[in-house]
Amino acid sequence: MSMTEPDRAPHGVAALFERTRSRSAMLAARLTPEDMVVQSMPDASPAKWHLAHTTWFFETFVLAEFEAGFRPHDPRFAHCFNSYYVQAGSRHARPMRGMLTRPSAAEVFGYRAAIEARIAALLIDARPADRDEIERRIELGCHHEMQHQELLLMDILHAFSLNPLEPAFLSPAPIMMEPHDSLADWHAFEGGMVEIGAAGGFHFDNEGPRHEAFVPPFRIAGRLVTAGEWIDFIEDGGYERETLWLSDGWYAAQAAGWQAPLYWRKAEGDWWTFGLRGTQLVDRDAPVHHVSYYEADAFARWAGKRLPSEFEWEVAAHSGSDDGNFVDGLYLRPRPPAGRTGVRQMLGEVWQWTRSAYAPYPGFRPATGALGEYNGKFMVNQYVLRGASFATARDHARATYRNFFHPHQRWAFSGLRLAEDL
Amino acid sequence: MSMTEPDRAPHGVAALFERTRSRSAMLAARLTPEDMVVQSMPDASPAKWHLAHTTWFFETFVLAEFEAGFRPHDPRFAHCFNSYYVQAGSRHARPMRGMLTRPSAAEVFGYRAAIEARIAALLIDARPADRDEIERRIELGCHHEMQHQELLLMDILHAFSLNPLEPAFLSPAPIMMEPHDSLADWHAFEGGMVEIGAAGGFHFDNEGPRHEAFVPPFRIAGRLVTAGEWIDFIEDGGYERETLWLSDGWYAAQAAGWQAPLYWRKAEGDWWTFGLRGTQLVDRDAPVHHVSYYEADAFARWAGKRLPSEFEWEVAAHSGSDDGNFVDGLYLRPRPPAGRTGVRQMLGEVWQWTRSAYAPYPGFRPATGALGEYNGKFMVNQYVLRGASFATARDHARATYRNFFHPHQRWAFSGLRLAEDL
Amino acid sequence: MSMTEPDRAPHGVAALFERTRSRSAMLAARLTPEDMVVQSMPDASPAKWHLAHTTWFFETFVLAEFEAGFRPHDPRFAHCFNSYYVQAGSRHARPMRGMLTRPSAAEVFGYRAAIEARIAALLIDARPADRDEIERRIELGCHHEMQHQELLLMDILHAFSLNPLEPAFLSPAPIMMEPHDSLADWHAFEGGMVEIGAAGGFHFDNEGPRHEAFVPPFRIAGRLVTAGEWIDFIEDGGYERETLWLSDGWYAAQAAGWQAPLYWRKAEGDWWTFGLRGTQLVDRDAPVHHVSYYEADAFARWAGKRLPSEFEWEVAAHSGSDDGNFVDGLYLRPRPPAGRTGVRQMLGEVWQWTRSAYAPYPGFRPATGALGEYNGKFMVNQYVLRGASFATARDHARATYRNFFHPHQRWAFSGLRLAEDL
Amino acid sequence: MSMTEPDRAPHGVAALFERTRSRSAMLAARLTPEDMVVQSMPDASPAKWHLAHTTWFFETFVLAEFEAGFRPHDPRFAHCFNSYYVQAGSRHARPMRGMLTRPSAAEVFGYRAAIEARIAALLIDARPADRDEIERRIELGCHHEMQHQELLLMDILHAFSLNPLEPAFLSPAPIMMEPHDSLADWHAFEGGMVEIGAAGGFHFDNEGPRHEAFVPPFRIAGRLVTAGEWIDFIEDGGYERETLWLSDGWYAAQAAGWQAPLYWRKAEGDWWTFGLRGTQLVDRDAPVHHVSYYEADAFARWAGKRLPSEFEWEVAAHSGSDDGNFVDGLYLRPRPPAGRTGVRQMLGEVWQWTRSAYAPYPGFRPATGALGEYNGKFMVNQYVLRGASFATARDHARATYRNFFHPHQRWAFSGLRLAEDL
Repeated sequence: MSMTEPDRAPHGVAALFERTRSRSAMLAARLTPEDMVVQSMPDASPAKWHLAHTTWFFETFVLAEFEAGFRPHDPRFAHCFNSYYVQAGSRHARPMRGMLTRPSAAEVFGYRAAIEARIAALLIDARPADRDEIERRIELGCHHEMQHQELLLMDILHAFSLNPLEPAFLSPAPIMMEPHDSLADWHAFEGGMVEIGAAGGFHFDNEGPRHEAFVPPFRIAGRLVTAGEWIDFIEDGGYERETLWLSDGWYAAQAAGWQAPLYWRKAEGDWWTFGLRGTQLVDRDAPVHHVSYYEADAFARWAGKRLPSEFEWEVAAHSGSDDGNFVDGLYLRPRPPAGRTGVRQMLGEVWQWTRSAYAPYPGFRPATGALGEYNGKFMVNQYVLRGASFATARDHARATYRNFFHPHQRWAFSGLRLAEDL
Repeated sequence: MSMTEPDRAPHGVAALFERTRSRSAMLAARLTPEDMVVQSMPDASPAKWHLAHTTWFFETFVLAEFEAGFRPHDPRFAHCFNSYYVQAGSRHARPMRGMLTRPSAAEVFGYRAAIEARIAALLIDARPADRDEIERRIELGCHHEMQHQELLLMDILHAFSLNPLEPAFLSPAPIMMEPHDSLADWHAFEGGMVEIGAAGGFHFDNEGPRHEAFVPPFRIAGRLVTAGEWIDFIEDGGYERETLWLSDGWYAAQAAGWQAPLYWRKAEGDWWTFGLRGTQLVDRDAPVHHVSYYEADAFARWAGKRLPSEFEWEVAAHSGSDDGNFVDGLYLRPRPPAGRTGVRQMLGEVWQWTRSAYAPYPGFRPATGALGEYNGKFMVNQYVLRGASFATARDHARATYRNFFHPHQRWAFSGLRLAEDL
Repeated sequence: MSMTEPDRAPHGVAALFERTRSRSAMLAARLTPEDMVVQSMPDASPAKWHLAHTTWFFETFVLAEFEAGFRPHDPRFAHCFNSYYVQAGSRHARPMRGMLTRPSAAEVFGYRAAIEARIAALLIDARPADRDEIERRIELGCHHEMQHQELLLMDILHAFSLNPLEPAFLSPAPIMMEPHDSLADWHAFEGGMVEIGAAGGFHFDNEGPRHEAFVPPFRIAGRLVTAGEWIDFIEDGGYERETLWLSDGWYAAQAAGWQAPLYWRKAEGDWWTFGLRGTQLVDRDAPVHHVSYYEADAFARWAGKRLPSEFEWEVAAHSGSDDGNFVDGLYLRPRPPAGRTGVRQMLGEVWQWTRSAYAPYPGFRPATGALGEYNGKFMVNQYVLRGASFATARDHARATYRNFFHPHQRWAFSGLRLAEDL
Repeated sequence: MSMTEPDRAPHGVAALFERTRSRSAMLAARLTPEDMVVQSMPDASPAKWHLAHTTWFFETFVLAEFEAGFRPHDPRFAHCFNSYYVQAGSRHARPMRGMLTRPSAAEVFGYRAAIEARIAALLIDARPADRDEIERRIELGCHHEMQHQELLLMDILHAFSLNPLEPAFLSPAPIMMEPHDSLADWHAFEGGMVEIGAAGGFHFDNEGPRHEAFVPPFRIAGRLVTAGEWIDFIEDGGYERETLWLSDGWYAAQAAGWQAPLYWRKAEGDWWTFGLRGTQLVDRDAPVHHVSYYEADAFARWAGKRLPSEFEWEVAAHSGSDDGNFVDGLYLRPRPPAGRTGVRQMLGEVWQWTRSAYAPYPGFRPATGALGEYNGKFMVNQYVLRGASFATARDHARATYRNFFHPHQRWAFSGLRLAEDL
């Protein structure tokens, strides 16, 4: 199938809305009211905040503009649940989100239900002249909420990792003991002038405008780097050899004492990892994840390769097979690659660091108003990740998607694939 | 009445235990499960942690030693709920207490009930040879829990102050508009060789040994410094005049931007404060509180006076009248002084900073074992506060009690009384 | 003249060496031994360290490999004066460079003289088979030293700015009061497939390999942004309007309290700046400098334009006129643009921020060994600046040169030029 | 001899002034101009700053008030060289003192010579009515300068310790290999009501007023704790056993990674230390120094003893023998105790931590004006050290002297003596 134009919204926006909101509820159902309060670091947010903020988004950018006789559900919520939309008013300081013991989880679920009912009514009652814009904004809100679903899983995993009881989001699943795929297959691409960026279908503003770019010839690995290969890197002194590292990366690694991916620990000779299914043995055949850009770059240098550019990745994705492992299947852990040929594991499994700094495409212009703050103002100091992860919604994955994190961040479900010049 | 020997345990230890445990439950009942998770700063602890830790204290220091066939309620709790008792095993890092979303509030209440039943049974079944030591330890555990009750109130107030919804622990109470007592009365004491420290009845190890000390003659104010007087200090440039301050205090005040006591803010020309009863106008006739040692010292210098030593305070307390405002009455706010003569407001209202660094009394020896870690290891860098506050249990207040905080800390219910050389 | 291939080394490497070393000595001659010790922030280095480190470079990478019977001048210097060459042995911690009161300035000048004599002898005596590589390395060492000459000026300016006596590196020069060039002229370029990178002549490894790139059509300003325009930005609330800023930039600006470029201050209604010629009025017609990438980006957004990419800049530079103001002329301050037409101020005056993250060119491979650490390991988190400044040596300026700093750094002589899509 | 009233000023104030100023010059003569610039940490100051600040003190507090037609030597110096006298005007930020490359060392020596000449002239020409106050202030200025002489040695040692060349202030001296005095002798004192504080002769304001205090009976060790005993402490796990430590001390030790006294390191099985005479083997029989209060307290607990109070120390000092090792002798390192009986090593060798928090004596009132800022505003968070060190001037040592540092500080020449209850 074509990966660039997935059937994103089967049965339309109303169904997408219903599907998205239900997924949030399903994820939240596995958490206690207390779990939903905690903010384990400034980069993370409480689950309750994610649930309320995504609701505030619909309230602010859909209802407030299109609902007749709009009144806010609770006028105090705007301050609590605005994230970073400067033009949408004041906001609660980000590192203080964990202080929001009130409103309670129950109140937030009530907020969600009320806004959902009002959105449903609006979809029925909207003036024809408004309908297109309403649907466009609801679709945007759904994708916004799908982003926050993955953040919720990242954030609750981080919080659980700091709890001595080691709570598991889901029960453990057995590790598939398939024969080790010891060597990745490589695939050559000619490059040249290529079309980059979203052509149609839903996409964020940062995926456009679609434009021409020149890509020199390259080769790319058919699968992701595995945890077993990462163990080889560790055992070969990967975390001790300064010459493998970018200078900023080396200092970050030393300051934080990195010796392995986030959540890994060695016990009795084996490597264990803490994930959404609790503490388990590292699955050596599955893709490594919870590595930073710095680590991914050092690994690539150690392997004598490099990370792909985001354009190379996008070119390769057009010939990729979609064997995705998404949050919809609730496996919540990456799987070893299926088969041995072809460009596999492009969507689903884990996000893939590219060597591309996050920057605007030629001709990029943010939307006007608060919605224009969605992406553009983060276009500095971050690197693009492509693909999607086991925690991404199938509706949300596409080949033109540009995810981004700072190069030291490790709590995303982030791994890597190797590339090289041809 | 004599303030040094309050009737601490009417009807014995079993009644004290019952009274103490019930008070914790009563305070907790005003909080949601989510409120109980939050840790708003490293100095503070979550309410749930206080509730569990005080229970762990009874389990570890009473049941584990005296209950036949003891088995821990949950073997993982020791790590979670040990505070700082090195000799009692490993412990969860203090700044990470807010990560304890599990065990849930419900589980902690279950833990409390189970341990209470086992303590009650032990009090009936204990071997006669053990009874004295069991009762001694339960009494200690009750006083330990009463300390944590006040900490719980301090900590939840701090957490609520960071919530934009400004939750109130209790509903507002009207401010009593009595005529302003503009001048404090002063009381002279001859001093000389005096007896200091606890002579009998329950007391912590740091209150002894009772010993002789030499106290030069002094005068002490009959009442606490009021919020109105503090406003005078502010308006006279108290927070801007470096020469009023200790050098360390000045740097602390500048670094943190202090302009008034903690939780005060000025709006529309009036001073407001956030307390356990929510946001209210500052009561000018009531004692100022939420001031640090540094601020108290600067105020005293501004007033041409000084803080009393803890020995002076204790000498004066013997002639004080006990008009206490304790947590038992649930007023949860300090009151203006009653009457106009005599040494008033010694116990209850607010803790009173003294000029005495927290240090061991001559001959002090901590108890052996983990219980000996209770006080001694904190005897550096802190200053003694005497009295008790509106958030202290009546059972817990006594004239020999030595509370202590670092000189920059402000989240305690801490005020001051002036003194001077005679 | 062609800007891409300046006559970099008239009369050969020996003359370049002589010219470069003399320039360092000439700059150092304006400093006292005490000035040369100081390290005013971790990013900066002492002048003495620059003088010794550049000498160590010749000793280590030329003499140690090619001089017969090589013995180090002082075996302890390698540890003191290695900057970051991991493969060249241990090194003194960077933030501790200001502790190097010993060796003295006199000893360092002696070190310089001794190594210069040995290099001169080697240039005469070298085996013919070695001569090419020796000359190549000496040329590299000269360019390395020219970089450090500019760093020395940046660093001593920063140090002097923190001295209450406000020492001036050079005496003040009058500000030329020419008529204000109120509107920049704009120049259109077609773009398309272009050749980027160094084709020949001396260049650093990061300037290659020369390669094809696709550049969409664009327009670029004929001159640099002036200080007067920057004052307009300030007065229009540029530093107070969050929506003009990248998110990371806003937080950096708030945390550091930026209100104007580094070294600017307002006094009695006028803007003053501290520079290598002491404290002077801001020259409104001259290029603004000491601005960070964040500020440059915010200014461009305010102006409705954007920064050029480094490729756009390089394309435009081919048609630029070379009216350079370099360190050779010792003007040490940027000048207003000369004339009113053409792409001016491309080399000399101030470094120009581009929107391009510092990254390897396609096919980039660092040299092997310690010299390969020169550039590659810094290719993250930094942005490319093009051009050169009034503190750059004429020998060192070229159109393919890629300078780089972190986006928050301001102590470089960094300004900006605007661009826009065509 | 009586230790409480040393013959402080033989031949009068003029001779004291001459002797003190010459000592500073003699110490400075061992440093290069570059050495004199460096500030190695915020707690330390550059040598040049000490030399200028002590001169500013005479200029400001003597000449400016008593010299006819006073004009400042350089009006900019007041801002540069005021330390913390708020009432004496603005001052350069303390952590920025290392930026003062100008004025040069030569200018500072010129400043010193000029002020010395003016003071000498004033001593001859002063109006009789002023003479007493002038002499009083010059004497104070001399003692102030002697304090700074010791600080200069502390500070330059710290700076040298961070230089990879390990410069020595003075050439090494052989370690005296006397037989190890394995057990300290103990001396009992009855205590009771005693007189504490300075009775006459020069003293700082914090040494008075002389007053009565009650001291319970105690015993005190006849000599200081030795480096050999400290090695026993290390080898017995002193730095790893949390129960030996005050809570704040444990966290300080862990955060800073303390494993031994400051400047100690273990190499090839031996303990080495860096001191004013360079790197030498630890002298096991000499007093340990460069230990913090936290370490001294932990050592005492390990030894089953405690630190003396400052009153106990002062009582014992009256019967001490004065076998002092002062800066006058330029030995610059502590010596093993001489003899085996009596209370030895009370003055000279190393400063001795007491258990007494630094606080005002009863009735203490700082002087009015800027000179009153000398001591009082530091009376919080610090602990008293008694005695004097090998870096103290003989003129400056006395039994009532109260030195003080924060409990985590280690760069003073600070050791300890044990005590216990009788």
